[in-house]
Amino acid sequence: ANASRIFKTVCRDWIFLALLGFIMASLSFGMDYAILNLQNAQMLLYDWVIDIHILLSLLVWVGYVVGLTVASALFAHYIAQQAIGSGIPEMKTILRGVILKEYLTVRTLISKMIGLTLSLGSGLPMGKEGPFVHIASVVAAQLSRLVHGSSSGIFENETRSAEMLAAGCAVGVACTFSAPIGGVLFSIEVTSVYFAVRNYWRGFFAATCSATLFRILRMFSISDSVTVEAHYQTNFPPQNTFLLQELPIFALIGLICGLLGSAFVYIHRRTVLFLRRNSIAKKMFQKYWIIYPIVIATFISSLSFPQGLGQFMGGQERFSHTMTEFFMNCTWTAENGASSACLTENGTSSWGDKFDIHHWKGPNMAYSPFITLACFQTVYFFLAILASTLPVPSGIFMPVFVLGAAFGRLVGEGVYQMFPDGMNDDAGFEIRPGVYAVVGAAAFCGAVTHTVSVAVIVFELTGQLCTLLPVMIAVLIANAIASYLQPSIYDSIIRIKNLPYLPDIPHTSSLYHEMRLEQFMITPVVFIAKDSSLADVRQAIESKPKVRAFPLVDSLDSLALVGSVSRSQLQRLIDARIGTKARYAEATRRI
Amino acid sequence: ANASRIFKTVCRDWIFLALLGFIMASLSFGMDYAILNLQNAQMLLYDWVIDIHILLSLLVWVGYVVGLTVASALFAHYIAQQAIGSGIPEMKTILRGVILKEYLTVRTLISKMIGLTLSLGSGLPMGKEGPFVHIASVVAAQLSRLVHGSSSGIFENETRSAEMLAAGCAVGVACTFSAPIGGVLFSIEVTSVYFAVRNYWRGFFAATCSATLFRILRMFSISDSVTVEAHYQTNFPPQNTFLLQELPIFALIGLICGLLGSAFVYIHRRTVLFLRRNSIAKKMFQKYWIIYPIVIATFISSLSFPQGLGQFMGGQERFSHTMTEFFMNCTWTAENGASSACLTENGTSSWGDKFDIHHWKGPNMAYSPFITLACFQTVYFFLAILASTLPVPSGIFMPVFVLGAAFGRLVGEGVYQMFPDGMNDDAGFEIRPGVYAVVGAAAFCGAVTHTVSVAVIVFELTGQLCTLLPVMIAVLIANAIASYLQPSIYDSIIRIKNLPYLPDIPHTSSLYHEMRLEQFMITPVVFIAKDSSLADVRQAIESKPKVRAFPLVDSLDSLALVGSVSRSQLQRLIDARIGTKARYAEATRRI
Repeated sequence: ANASRIFKTVCRDWIFLALLGFIMASLSFGMDYAILNLQNAQMLLYDWVIDIHILLSLLVWVGYVVGLTVASALFAHYIAQQAIGSGIPEMKTILRGVILKEYLTVRTLISKMIGLTLSLGSGLPMGKEGPFVHIASVVAAQLSRLVHGSSSGIFENETRSAEMLAAGCAVGVACTFSAPIGGVLFSIEVTSVYFAVRNYWRGFFAATCSATLFRILRMFSISDSVTVEAHYQTNFPPQNTFLLQELPIFALIGLICGLLGSAFVYIHRRTVLFLRRNSIAKKMFQKYWIIYPIVIATFISSLSFPQGLGQFMGGQERFSHTMTEFFMNCTWTAENGASSACLTENGTSSWGDKFDIHHWKGPNMAYSPFITLACFQTVYFFLAILASTLPVPSGIFMPVFVLGAAFGRLVGEGVYQMFPDGMNDDAGFEIRPGVYAVVGAAAFCGAVTHTVSVAVIVFELTGQLCTLLPVMIAVLIANAIASYLQPSIYDSIIRIKNLPYLPDIPHTSSLYHEMRLEQFMITPVVFIAKDSSLADVRQAIESKPKVRAFPLVDSLDSLALVGSVSRSQLQRLIDARIGTKARYAEATRRI
Repeated sequence: ANASRIFKTVCRDWIFLALLGFIMASLSFGMDYAILNLQNAQMLLYDWVIDIHILLSLLVWVGYVVGLTVASALFAHYIAQQAIGSGIPEMKTILRGVILKEYLTVRTLISKMIGLTLSLGSGLPMGKEGPFVHIASVVAAQLSRLVHGSSSGIFENETRSAEMLAAGCAVGVACTFSAPIGGVLFSIEVTSVYFAVRNYWRGFFAATCSATLFRILRMFSISDSVTVEAHYQTNFPPQNTFLLQELPIFALIGLICGLLGSAFVYIHRRTVLFLRRNSIAKKMFQKYWIIYPIVIATFISSLSFPQGLGQFMGGQERFSHTMTEFFMNCTWTAENGASSACLTENGTSSWGDKFDIHHWKGPNMAYSPFITLACFQTVYFFLAILASTLPVPSGIFMPVFVLGAAFGRLVGEGVYQMFPDGMNDDAGFEIRPGVYAVVGAAAFCGAVTHTVSVAVIVFELTGQLCTLLPVMIAVLIANAIASYLQPSIYDSIIRIKNLPYLPDIPHTSSLYHEMRLEQFMITPVVFIAKDSSLADVRQAIESKPKVRAFPLVDSLDSLALVGSVSRSQLQRLIDARIGTKARYAEATRRI
């Protein structure tokens, strides 16, 4: 009976984690499906009315986005306001031991799921990774209650719940990108301070279960001949992906991404604080809070209108889909007909990429991709920040990822223009702007989130490891720079929201081992000797009005420290000997 | 001045890590070069004398191996005995806070480097990963002394040294496989209990520096047109690497590898303990210790003699090179001329693999690869254990990795025989035994070392991520089974060597939350009431001679607990009232 009991309880852990993985895979799959259909519906509607009148199509385009955004905001507002925003900062707080119970209820779960589906369906520049971490954590917490029985609290154990929540976070990230390894590492980096290595396997196990089911579901739904593929599979040749001569450029991308990432975090914080502190904004949020999402959604969606400004920034594609285009193997700015061009002479793209270069060159190939890419980045840099201030569930990771990829692609195309035949004389060593896009995406994300493991996520997303060296170099440099300039976006939000948090443990850099007392001691030292006169004592306490205790030395000659005397004691002593009372007492005695 | 001081001290950390990476890359490169040449020299010698007489060639073959092994053993014995063995168990002990200073001296470094070059050059089934971790740690420790100034110990700081050592370990693993990410994760899993996430970047930075320099060196030395490639680059098609129907087979591989891994650790421990405790062995080791390496090296090398038994187990290739062959994309047992065969009709291998199938089918294609593979595994399973008991620097990771790959390849070839046209009707979905080899290698290593991150190392080694799902599934299952059956090989060695170690923190499994007091309480409870008679008390303490304190209740009716009384107090009370003295006193009073 005892053996079976042990077996049962051991298995329970495994079953719990497997269940967590499976549930999250199903939820993720279902939501992906709904989001994709909502986004496609907008395109269909748009295509349908485009022939009638351009103004009507603008109205439909903007109306659709505003409608979904408002629906999402209303949902989040009336069901559970805890669903608003990313969720990672809150999970970080919870995993550090603060109890925020209302963040882990079924009500929050429902609000977050439906809200997220609506807000992402609108096509605004938002991500789903933060909300997914939140959703997975709620599922883990609720499942924990179910599997480990009863809400009576008798079997509850803080460490244990924290472990399960951590597994939840890992599954959340892993689901978003179907990146089981990177997801686990990312969630550790983002939420933990000290990590218990013995719990390492939990996250991996749950994430692997989730990835397995997710791919099975995808196989049956797409019914493609391709069984298993990465989210944004790239097709770089594994041997000659880059030359070592290009490494300094990748390092430079890391440097710039570090600076841009810090700027992103800084501007995000200033924007949010402005909206919170400005009296007009405050009033608006309290009384007519629904106006804000309407205004912002209208603004963002009209900017991205494909017939309008959208044509300068790849507006035909939904924001999150542009990623695939940035990672394309072909070179956007290569001359038509060149071997690496996206539009070769027979009208197809080189290397079999399914990609319409018109998205980035305009319908008549009139614009340079340099201009559209620069527009895209500048505009979405601010739009992503604006979108993240909306009162709907939204993540920050994906927009940052896309922005980084756009920046990398821009640099890569520039380098290609400088070295159209590659840096080496041999054939097959062309500059590949797609590699630069991958590097840029990883570096910018690394800078904003202060994580190294984003590199692993990128490898799993692209399904290729040949970009390992450039990505690692750029991510590390971006990280180093960003962490000296700004907190991570999640820590920044924790401070904005005044969530309780433990201060960071400072790095044990050599700094502390180099500092000496003489650098901050007060000189000259004021001290009192056993043979000091009362005048000396008085002068000492008057010369240093802020010092609360004085060192006491054996004699003025030896200066050997024997102890310390507090100011108040000295004061009392002096008062007793030469103060008003003392003098009065002395006086009466003489009478 | 203050700003420049901060700048200097901050940079010092970075420079330290970069230097560490660069030094290790150079050392690694140099040693690889020397080892390769030593191994090639044996082959050249062998080819040269093979025509003269077979016995002469056997003599040369065995003599070469024995000579190098003995040289290595002598070196380790007289320069620094700390160089013997892997080094990871010692590093684990050191990182847990135990000071083993003699393991981090320059003398040990030299002994380990030269000893390792000689022992690996002999071609015995040994790895270099453990010794490399040791070497990198020594370099880190020595560099730390140089960079952070003075051996005076004033600036020394335990946490700080530990951090630097941890970075050293990471670089060591990363160097061995040029796997920067997997290396860092593996070293964390193997050496840490709790890991401070803020130090995460150190390992990555040093490992990336090392990987960069290593690849630059390799490019200049090989002067190949291929700039950057993985160690054991595989060429599986990223889309159709495996079918989901194959996943249960991969899980089964994980299961068996878990069992085999535990067996490996168990047999290894029994062998070492036998050699340490057996009186004959003891005598031999103390007086004529050099005999043991001679005997073992002779035994192993004569078994692998290519003209003898070696032809049944791929003897033409050095042990560590067989890996490449196990990972080949083509199918060994496919009929000649089949699309996936290693020997197609025009005499070349399919998919352009550079591979000589004669290694595994014998010179006349007479043997089945099933037999040679099975021989290879069985023989090397025990030879690897034997080789690890030699008094030379040697690692255990690589032999285990090769064994796992061989096992995977065997299973894969079997599955191919069952489904020669694949499990699916579509073309391009053949069973790929190479994928099975990758899965087997990862699972067996995971089982022996109790790590999950071995999966990441495998991806970096093969340069492909398309095997992610099978590898993760197999590794997790192998891990789970192995950790319930045996400690990891490193913990096992720690116990054998009686190194000081902290006991493992138990997993917080639900087990503890399911246990109730009633399961181990003593029933019926013996208690004492305020209204108990002396007879009751006496009976109570006599009935439970081992209970040291009795609960005290308010009355026999209410049974409300009011406290506890110790046995000694009760004893004294009884003695005082009805003991010999009391009775004597009573008697005298009555007189």
